[in-house]
Amino acid sequence: MTTMEVGNKLVELCKKGENLKAVETLYSPDIVSVEAAATPAMPAEMKGMEAIKGKNKWWLDNHEVHSAACEGPYPHGDRFIVRFTYDITNKQSKKRMKMDEMALYTVKGGKIAREEFFYAMG
Amino acid sequence: MTTMEVGNKLVELCKKGENLKAVETLYSPDIVSVEAAATPAMPAEMKGMEAIKGKNKWWLDNHEVHSAACEGPYPHGDRFIVRFTYDITNKQSKKRMKMDEMALYTVKGGKIAREEFFYAMG
Repeated sequence: MTTMEVGNKLVELCKKGENLKAVETLYSPDIVSVEAAATPAMPAEMKGMEAIKGKNKWWLDNHEVHSAACEGPYPHGDRFIVRFTYDITNKQSKKRMKMDEMALYTVKGGKIAREEFFYAMG
Repeated sequence: MTTMEVGNKLVELCKKGENLKAVETLYSPDIVSVEAAATPAMPAEMKGMEAIKGKNKWWLDNHEVHSAACEGPYPHGDRFIVRFTYDITNKQSKKRMKMDEMALYTVKGGKIAREEFFYAMG
């Protein structure tokens, strides 16, 4: 798949809430995922399909999603950007919040090899 | 300035339509600017303050801007993303169009050293 095809498929799956399927089908086994910051519970950088699936499952298990949207893909060479906006409640803190972030993806050999998340910290 | 301060200042100036002032005050003399694609009139990559100022002036001279918006900055380490949306008319073709693009900036030594534009081609 071309970078644009990978981007279109990712956005299509995320719009249906099938984020885990996107990871399983579009990501490289050696995927590297980098947050804008580490948290006490999670390092900024994680690597490998199982770790990234675990990170996605943790997020889905710990948040109630009231609404979600994604816009893009915006391509440039072997990279593309997608904007994600969420209205969520953290199940532990019960705190409802809006998330607004950009994800920068790098495609190698038809698979997503790197994802980097851009967002402002509270 | 930190990456976030540079990003905030860029967005503040662009919201006022002062894009040229942003280039003059926030960009490195060795700025590298990369479009998602070359055009017959312009290479994808341009370098140096004078070239980038020329590129910005060309764009402003050749388009009537009906409305413009920018969202961000979305930071990650020494980089940040800004979304630009424009409603413009090309003065030569008289064609009115909407532009929607992401710009990825890299900051070095408190100045923007690289800008890369992400967008889908017609």
